[in-house]
Amino acid sequence: MNAEIINIGDELLAGHTLNSNASWMSAKLRGIAMPVARHTVVPDEKNAIIHALNAVLESSTHIFITGGLGPTGDDRTKAIITEYFGGKLVFMQTIYDEIDAFFRFRGRIPSPNNKEQAWQPDNAELIPNTRGTAHGMIFHRGKQVFYIMPGVPFEMQAMMTNVILPRLAGISDRSDIERQINTFGVPESEIADIIAKHFPEVEKEIILGYYPSVRGITIRLRGEKRQAVKEYHAKIAALLGAAVFSLQGESLAFCVVDMCRKRNLSLTTAESCTGGLIANYITDISGASHMFKQGYIVYSNEAKTGLLAVSPLLIEKYGAVSRETVEAMARGAQTSAGTDIAVAVSGIAGPDGGTAEKPVGTVWIALIYKNKLHTQKLSRNRGRRKNKEYAANSALNMIRLILRENK
Amino acid sequence: MNAEIINIGDELLAGHTLNSNASWMSAKLRGIAMPVARHTVVPDEKNAIIHALNAVLESSTHIFITGGLGPTGDDRTKAIITEYFGGKLVFMQTIYDEIDAFFRFRGRIPSPNNKEQAWQPDNAELIPNTRGTAHGMIFHRGKQVFYIMPGVPFEMQAMMTNVILPRLAGISDRSDIERQINTFGVPESEIADIIAKHFPEVEKEIILGYYPSVRGITIRLRGEKRQAVKEYHAKIAALLGAAVFSLQGESLAFCVVDMCRKRNLSLTTAESCTGGLIANYITDISGASHMFKQGYIVYSNEAKTGLLAVSPLLIEKYGAVSRETVEAMARGAQTSAGTDIAVAVSGIAGPDGGTAEKPVGTVWIALIYKNKLHTQKLSRNRGRRKNKEYAANSALNMIRLILRENK
Repeated sequence: MNAEIINIGDELLAGHTLNSNASWMSAKLRGIAMPVARHTVVPDEKNAIIHALNAVLESSTHIFITGGLGPTGDDRTKAIITEYFGGKLVFMQTIYDEIDAFFRFRGRIPSPNNKEQAWQPDNAELIPNTRGTAHGMIFHRGKQVFYIMPGVPFEMQAMMTNVILPRLAGISDRSDIERQINTFGVPESEIADIIAKHFPEVEKEIILGYYPSVRGITIRLRGEKRQAVKEYHAKIAALLGAAVFSLQGESLAFCVVDMCRKRNLSLTTAESCTGGLIANYITDISGASHMFKQGYIVYSNEAKTGLLAVSPLLIEKYGAVSRETVEAMARGAQTSAGTDIAVAVSGIAGPDGGTAEKPVGTVWIALIYKNKLHTQKLSRNRGRRKNKEYAANSALNMIRLILRENK
Repeated sequence: MNAEIINIGDELLAGHTLNSNASWMSAKLRGIAMPVARHTVVPDEKNAIIHALNAVLESSTHIFITGGLGPTGDDRTKAIITEYFGGKLVFMQTIYDEIDAFFRFRGRIPSPNNKEQAWQPDNAELIPNTRGTAHGMIFHRGKQVFYIMPGVPFEMQAMMTNVILPRLAGISDRSDIERQINTFGVPESEIADIIAKHFPEVEKEIILGYYPSVRGITIRLRGEKRQAVKEYHAKIAALLGAAVFSLQGESLAFCVVDMCRKRNLSLTTAESCTGGLIANYITDISGASHMFKQGYIVYSNEAKTGLLAVSPLLIEKYGAVSRETVEAMARGAQTSAGTDIAVAVSGIAGPDGGTAEKPVGTVWIALIYKNKLHTQKLSRNRGRRKNKEYAANSALNMIRLILRENK
């Protein structure tokens, strides 16, 4: 059992769109132990599509293809693939009626473009589309099965989840497993060195991978020796100690929400340079409303004074980006919101606003819990958006570490 | 001149990481008029890498390869590719000294893993890495040039920007151009029908593509008939009128910040279900501090009352997700922050909290400007995070439309 993914779409090759479909499908296929051997992206163009179909790996048993089934004129895939597998498009009245009903239910009438979608191959099994009007298709060639789906993620995901994955679950013959360790705050090479020092034989037994981002460094362990993977997973996690925030891929925000909920603690945020991003991460977690009631975005000095009672003299003396100011922001937010914990961030996200003394990337974070203040300074410039993301994740990690120490 | 991109990395095939490198490189290559004919992702494994090198399209003149050059043991690419092109790895003292200096400058000492990186091919031109320790490599085969770079986006981008793109700029023989129109609020099929009705011949002259997301629908026009592309770009933009927010790919947040800055208007945000996301979008724009001073995240009813003076009786009568409550939130935020404009959002992001009357996905948005209130209701469920994103973009679009009408 081997999977291969082909995504058809000029927008992917032009760099306009990230290939989130390949990533989503790969993760789901991995979940049913079906390894993905290759991703290929080709343009929505007859010769390229046929070349890609001819070039499918012999070892691939299940080929997943997305793109080119939409209602607009830039989509040619359906006709090309149907012809490739020796069929032709025929008008299907029942499908036309479905499209008509889909639009009427939403109070709209189908356009001529939408009506085109009633033409379907006479040599494929159709996959219903519960979220749109373009059907998916299943073709067979020898032992290979081809699944053709729309490129709209929302529609493709429904077809995979409702129809394809349930059919494929349990048929894989693979026995390798994978575990992960999510860390924050220790550089990749340092983690690799610690592991190599304590477990010099590890890479003979299992496969280790390191994946750094602004959300931390993820370590992945996998291999066919299931027991070894499980044992090293536990041993390496123990070795790395406080740097580990999850063993299952949860986000830092999830950990913070979870810790607060379990201990019945409330939290508020006072954000200057992160501009609402910490609160956004927290409210991405379903159930955050139990521990997060309100937050402050205090972008100007006046807002820091007006909403959080930070003294204007203090800001003038130390600057808006300083230990003293973030500490006062955290105190002010805690008092105003009446929470157990308050976290405050002020920094220079860039590209403008840096000075020799406080260059772009300088960020101060303060946290108050049990009447004790903790602070941290960041100083590396990663570009405006990454500066915000790294600062927001660092703030969440700081909450996690303080709660971990104060059980 | 034709480009092709190969990304090596188990993490991409496992669905752990989005292939942002392929997307970034494709956009840059498009910028120098070098079209990308294919993306391929293969595992960090000898046979797969060699198969991918053998399968490079004959028509590809420039092949860009990323991944597998990092400091940890999961990276085998360098040795495999060097051998493939008939060379071998040799120890280079000058590179060792550079790595040593790179670490000392940062107050760290290089690890044994880092030292491995002083081994380099004897048959390649090396590309310096200004942001890390793994060098890039350039190999030649007939008329084909192969560029091998690290998979870390930050490092790859520096090599492309500083070395490779300047060399390639201006050598392309392609003459097609591309323009875009960014819209919000009109469905894809409706836009396609309007264009087809007014310009039935358009697709004979140029290539049209439609790319929908929660940030709106982007229309792309391209072709070798440069004049036709430019003319249709202007004509279609005029036809779509108020639905168009940019002709150059700027975000809705950029447009709002820009409009406010030009008219010297200030803005504040009162966010319940979007949880800080609108403010985050706004503060992603450099220079937002001129028009955005403070924002409120009011997740609970108490916060709506305490920070924005929304009457508890009003919330009790109409519910937190209602026209009446978001209007009161907008009024309260405008009064408290003293801004020209205030936007307020309250909704049910899900997955829990929906009712028959107010299902998940129900979102109310209110905007106050020149003492006049405007409201809008959303009702489609796209899943928690997409609900937040679509609501935040809808709020920004509403600000844009109101400012457009009130010149």
